[in-house]
Order: sequence, then structure tokens, then C-alpha cells
Amino acid sequence: MLFSQAQVIRTLRCKNRNVPGVMGRLATLIGEEGAYMGEIKTISLGTNAVVRDIDVLVEDEAHFKRLLDKLKELKKDVQILEIRDEVLTLHRHGKIETKPRVPITTIHQLRRVYTPGVANVSRLIAQDGDRADKYTWIPLTVGIFTNGSRVLGLGNIGPLASLPVMEGKAALLSQLTGLNAVPILVNTRDPKEFVETVLRVEKGFGAIHLEDIEVPHCFEIEEKLIKALEKPVMHDDQHGTAVAALAAILSACRRVKVDIQKLSIGQVGLGAAGLAISKLLMGFTGNPVLATDLNEDACQRLRKAGGKIGKLDDVLSTCDLIVATTGVPGLIKKEKIRKGQIILALSNPVPEIEPQDALDAGAALAADGRSVNNLLGYPGIWRGALDCRAKRLTTPIYVAAAQAIAAQSPKDELLPNPLDVRVHANVARAVALAVTKEGLAKNPVEDDYLKNEASGKAPEESFLSKERWER
Amino acid sequence: MLFSQAQVIRTLRCKNRNVPGVMGRLATLIGEEGAYMGEIKTISLGTNAVVRDIDVLVEDEAHFKRLLDKLKELKKDVQILEIRDEVLTLHRHGKIETKPRVPITTIHQLRRVYTPGVANVSRLIAQDGDRADKYTWIPLTVGIFTNGSRVLGLGNIGPLASLPVMEGKAALLSQLTGLNAVPILVNTRDPKEFVETVLRVEKGFGAIHLEDIEVPHCFEIEEKLIKALEKPVMHDDQHGTAVAALAAILSACRRVKVDIQKLSIGQVGLGAAGLAISKLLMGFTGNPVLATDLNEDACQRLRKAGGKIGKLDDVLSTCDLIVATTGVPGLIKKEKIRKGQIILALSNPVPEIEPQDALDAGAALAADGRSVNNLLGYPGIWRGALDCRAKRLTTPIYVAAAQAIAAQSPKDELLPNPLDVRVHANVARAVALAVTKEGLAKNPVEDDYLKNEASGKAPEESFLSKERWER
Repeated sequence: MLFSQAQVIRTLRCKNRNVPGVMGRLATLIGEEGAYMGEIKTISLGTNAVVRDIDVLVEDEAHFKRLLDKLKELKKDVQILEIRDEVLTLHRHGKIETKPRVPITTIHQLRRVYTPGVANVSRLIAQDGDRADKYTWIPLTVGIFTNGSRVLGLGNIGPLASLPVMEGKAALLSQLTGLNAVPILVNTRDPKEFVETVLRVEKGFGAIHLEDIEVPHCFEIEEKLIKALEKPVMHDDQHGTAVAALAAILSACRRVKVDIQKLSIGQVGLGAAGLAISKLLMGFTGNPVLATDLNEDACQRLRKAGGKIGKLDDVLSTCDLIVATTGVPGLIKKEKIRKGQIILALSNPVPEIEPQDALDAGAALAADGRSVNNLLGYPGIWRGALDCRAKRLTTPIYVAAAQAIAAQSPKDELLPNPLDVRVHANVARAVALAVTKEGLAKNPVEDDYLKNEASGKAPEESFLSKERWER
Repeated sequence: MLFSQAQVIRTLRCKNRNVPGVMGRLATLIGEEGAYMGEIKTISLGTNAVVRDIDVLVEDEAHFKRLLDKLKELKKDVQILEIRDEVLTLHRHGKIETKPRVPITTIHQLRRVYTPGVANVSRLIAQDGDRADKYTWIPLTVGIFTNGSRVLGLGNIGPLASLPVMEGKAALLSQLTGLNAVPILVNTRDPKEFVETVLRVEKGFGAIHLEDIEVPHCFEIEEKLIKALEKPVMHDDQHGTAVAALAAILSACRRVKVDIQKLSIGQVGLGAAGLAISKLLMGFTGNPVLATDLNEDACQRLRKAGGKIGKLDDVLSTCDLIVATTGVPGLIKKEKIRKGQIILALSNPVPEIEPQDALDAGAALAADGRSVNNLLGYPGIWRGALDCRAKRLTTPIYVAAAQAIAAQSPKDELLPNPLDVRVHANVARAVALAVTKEGLAKNPVEDDYLKNEASGKAPEESFLSKERWER
């Protein structure tokens, strides 16, 4: 099992006899069973025994059972006191919460945030709706809309079961940019009803994030909402992924020292992500992408966007840069890789070809979906788009986001750490400036926008602090 | 101007000459202009001058202008450095925010709250939807739905302008019970579309709070949603207000030492609140209420609920307890009050009769809407209903909430302090127990439910702490 296939995390609390070699045998056995080890935490260290929490990463429940059976071999030296699913524990009661921005503990405060004080604020907004930007949470708040019809590797599990994913997206957005995010579960698979529902409740949100909606409905829904609304709408599975992919490609080209304009680009798989990546690449380079997909509708969509369609073998044998987003594990055989190719096999959890295999076969550079995390895209995009109150998002804006991400990659990595707040601050700045340049900002920003926050000391604090919003 | 008519709060930063008598003259002048003084904060105290922030409460902008003109009389001694609207400042960027419940700062945590860890949580919920109660924010989260068609004293200002009110409701719910609350602005005045919209997005919320919806649509909307959903639905303007009113009535009867069962009860005004109060009183006492309203539809609704209709004079001249919710300032003349009556004139901001006038006219007890704050109702009701996962709310449950509120009134007040977390903890407990008794709890609770939290030390902390949710 490859690390990327490890879908299940369990924590074993082990009481080991405190003699030399026990931990070595335990670790060896876990490795022999094909499981990975994660965090190891020492709980107590006694004369006779040492208790440790050991995370193991396995493929599935059956694999975990086999591992436990195997560990019985060590029962004289290793006693398993407890097995925990800490992922589940972490999800108890959800991953986000709402809080009052100012505590309301006195009648004096109550009269300001509630009656009678609030009446005047409502009256002012009733007179001029633009004031809602100033006196409500709208310009800081993203609605994350889904019907759960295409979740991760899980497919159409429906809105309810998709909520943990949306809560994760929301929690990360708050964590990384200070914005608010609310998951909205839309209980329909009909794209017209979906659009109608978003339009009925969109007023309370500054931006509309679409997530995990099946093809082809995601295209229709996004298009109609963009047309209907003067606020940013983005289907993250398309554009967030495309931004992260373009960033990886820019970073790869820099490392391999090639000019992206001179590369022939091949796209394998034209689902939501693949199509969006192709469009963004074509928008950026001005050159057509050669793509392949088994679905004729998908091919037609690419042709309409200016791309060319070929067979898988054509793409692999003629293109310098291959981006694969098929969801088919191992689709690209080692033998097809040509010397010097750049390979991004992005399907999760298992890529079309393992990076190491592609490198062994002569690729100049290879990466999989784990290193091209779309978490690099949407937080900074939303923060930048909301900071300047973007009316719409366009290709140059997405390109600016990708360039800002690529520019921050460390020398030895394709992309920067997605948990680094500074990265998102810089993406936000690039996006807000690009929106302003495009003439799509209701609230245009200056060149030094966020500069202090993004380059000064403790940028996390200043970027996220509430004072920052008071500019 | 009565205190209850003071709708506008402004903060004056005054630099006063530091000689005896200046503050006295300033305060006198403010009083002569009919304005009230609120908080007074000393900013700096020098040899020659003292700078203070003084809150003044006035009727409207014109009144404030008159006050400023008047203050010019003191210009030799009092210099106004700055005029601030601190209510507006407080509303900047909204009153609520979302936060991650656990910080996500390492890749290790990221793999648990996001991919790959989250996939297993979604899979478990897809297999059994009830698990969403455990692993999502749903059972802690209230959706506050409005179309802004009947806001405070403002009328139909639409959803956008109503948002500050909804944010206030949400902030207070989080502050007082630890629950999450999300305002959802529904952009339609059509009750069928409203219901349809709520049904399309309700899956992400544990409870549906309806707020500020016009009569008669509020009745139709609430009724249809209660029928369609197996989760609690409550129109706060009806039932939250009715619960607070019943609590005040119970408390009043206790103070005047009369048995509510022996009182003839009159209701003046059968809007959303008045009808709900009448229904709750009839449900509680088993006796019909004699009511009056100019609208025949409203009268018909009360008759259907078992009440009787009369003229205003009939109600005032025959009933022992009068509850007025007409929105008509000064509707009840002093001359009509009879000795020993209990008068609750609840219209905001100006009551049907000032409590002091009613008392002067012989009433045994009189109160207005400020002391019957519906903030006493909904927080504890939602917390209790969600703690036991109520399928529905019924009259006995609302009665239990009212009794719990009344039981906590201090000796010298009609109702307890709505900002006291312990009050809401006790209401929550009463509600959860009542739901359980009614057989409507998916998650029945025991008698000692919340007992430690509500009666032990530092109840605020234990009631609100996240550990509490881990039971």
C-alpha cells in the first residue's frame, strides 16, 4: 500500500515492556503488515513499562484487523490497552462554531447590539443597502453550498453526509484568513432548483463557494449564478484545483528551467477539475491544450473552450507537460513516460502514476495530488475577492492567485505549506490587486494593500486580527 | 419623551472646564432638553479640563440636533470634541463570526479534519444519517430564518436590512447558551416559496428559528414547517414572546398573591404575539381568553383556538388581567383602569399605557415590554430542545419554559436578568425535561440533567464549556 492509499487512521495505546528492542519489534511488525506509522506520543515512562499512543495508517478496516492480529505475536511484550479513532473524536459536535464578535454581558451592551440600538442600524441599511457592507458580517462571510452529489472519492453521498467535508472547508477558511464560512446543505440534485435556492438565500453572504457538485450540473449552476449575481461565485473543485495545479506547473517549469509558453500541454481527464485546469492553462499561455477523455460531452466542452482532443497515447507521446485528473489509479503506465516530461498525476487518493515511478521512467519532474493541495487556492482567493468586494472572478484573477502561490514555493518543494497564513495573505493581496486591475472591484485596493501584514513581523497575527478589518 | 421612546444613542466627548458646577449645568441642560443620560466615562482629568465620554439617549436625529444647539449655551465651559455613534461602531463587520472548534496548525491535524481523515466520517454518516448528530455541528446549530417582512417597529424592510437584528439574535444565543446560530436571509415574501426554501436548506440545522415574518404568513409558514420536519420549529415573535409574557404573568400573580386560574384574562391585540400569548394562556389555564382586535381574520384565529371576542371596553371593564400587544402607543386610557387589575402593556418601544400611569390609576401591578424581554425565552428553549433532540415543541413545553423563568425572578423584579446564563441553563433543563415527558425527545434526558452545571459553582463556565457537550 502506498502512503496515499492510507485512508484510515487509528491510535493504539500500547503498554510495552521496558526492555531494549521492544519498540523496534513493534515498529517492524507494523511495517511488515504494510501499515504506516504516524504520530508517536509517550504517555508514561515507568521502570517496567512504557505506555505510548501510536498512530497507524492503514488502507481500510480489514487491513486494520489484519494488523491487530499480527500484533498478537508480541503479546508478551506489547499490550494494547486501547484503540481509538481520534478522527471521529475530533469530529464530535462539528468542526466550526459561531461566536459573538463582542461579548454581551451588560444591559448597556445589550441595548447597543439588540433593541433599541439595532433598529437604527437596520433603518440605515433599509435606506441604502450598500451600508450592509459596513454594518453586517456579509463582506467577511462565505456561504459554502453543496448538494453532496460528488464528494471526494465517495460520489453522490447527499448533502447530510457531505457536511463534515464542508465543515472542514469552513474551519480552514476561518483558520487561514479570518473570514467567516457557513456550510449550506442544498437538498436537491436538480440544477435549476439548486440555483433557485442559492438565489433565495444569497443575500446574507459576500461570496458563494460551490463545492462537490456533480458534472455536468456544476457547470450550469456556476454559470447561472455568475450571471445572476454581482458577487464572486466559485466552484472550488474547478477553479480552486486549477489554481493550485497552475501554481504547481509554474513552480515545476521554474525548477526544470523551461518556459511554459514553449511546452506542449496535455490533459488526461476532463472532469470538473481537468476542464478548469485546461481552460486556465489556455487562458494563461494562449496555446491550446491537447486533452483526452472517454466522455464525448466532456470533450465537446474543451473544444468549445479552444482545446484539442486526442487519444491517451497521443497525449502521452506528444506532450511535454501531462496533467492527469481521471480518478483512475495507475492509468498511466511507466513505459509511456518519455524522458524530460513533467507529470502531474493529481487524482486522489491514488494517482494515475506514482511520482517515483514516473521519475524512474525518465520524467524530469513528477508530483501527485497530495502536493498539489487545493487548500492553497480558495482561502486566499476568497479573502482577496472579499477585501476588494469583487463583482466577479475571471481567468487573470485565477492566474494571479496561481502566480502568487508559485512564487512562495520553497526551493526544495513544488508548492508552499498550505497551513502558512502568510501564503494566503500573499494570495489574497495578489487576487485583490488583480480584481482591481480588471475593473471588477467595488472597493479597489492599492498596491501596498496588506503589505505590512504580509511582510512585517508576526504576519499571522496582523493578517487575522480583527483590528485589521478596521481599515 | 419616555425612556422607552429613546431610540437613538450618541456618545459626546466633552472637554469641560475643571471648575465646580460645570458637570451639573451640562447634565441639567441635557435633562431640560428631554434627553436621558447613559454611561459616563472619564477619559482624562487635568488641572484645567476634564474630558468625558457621555452617552445621551434621544428620540431621533432631530431631537439630537436640538440637544446640540442647546449645549451651545455652555460653550465657554463645555467643548464638544467629538460625536460618536458607538452603536454603529459596534456593528462594524457584524456581530457574529465563525471559528474552527479546534485549531488546525499542523499537517497532522489537517489530515484529521480534512482529507484523508474526513472521508471516513462522511462514509459513516452516509451509512446512517443519525450519526450526523454526533459528528457534525447540526445538533448545536440553529438556523435563524427571516424575510425581514415585519421587523421591530420598522415593518417590511426586507431581508438585507433585517440582518443586524438576526445577527443580534444569533450573537445572544451563542453568548447565553453556547449554541451556534446562523442568520439565513430568505429573499421572498411568498409564504410557499419561503417554506420551500427552508425545506431545501434545513438539513444543516438542528432547529429552525423563524423571525420577523409578517402576519398572516408567519402562521402558515410555521404550521407547514412543523408538519414537514421532525425537528423543532419556532416562530420567536409568537412563542418566544408568549413564553416571556406567561412568565411575567405567573410572576405577577405570585406577587399580587392571586391564583391565575381564578383570573379572567383579557388580550388586547391579536397579532402574532397576542394570539400566541392567548393560546398559551388558554393552554395553561384551560380557561378562554376574552380578546379584542380590529382585524376580523385575527379574531377568527382566536375563536378557532377557543377564545372569545369582545370590544376593547368590554375587555378592560371585565378582565382582571390585561395583556396588550397592539403596537398602538397610549391606547389604554388611565380612566379605564380598574382597581386591582394586572396590566401588561407590552408594545415596544412605547406601551399602550405607561406602567406608572396604570399604577396611579389603581392597578395592582403594571409592566411594559422592556421588562418582558423575549430574550428570556428562545435561548433556553433552543438549548433544551437541542440537548434532547426534540421532534416538536408543544404548549406544555412552552409552559415549562415560562414556569422556569418565573421561578427565577428576584423578589423585587417581575422577571430575571436576561443576561444571566444560569437563567437560561434552568430554562434549558425545564424544556428538555418537558420534551422528554411529552415523549418527543429523540435523546431523552434524566432529571439531573444539567443539575451540576445549573446549581454548582461558576455555572456560566460549566454550562457553556465545550467539555459539557462531551457527555
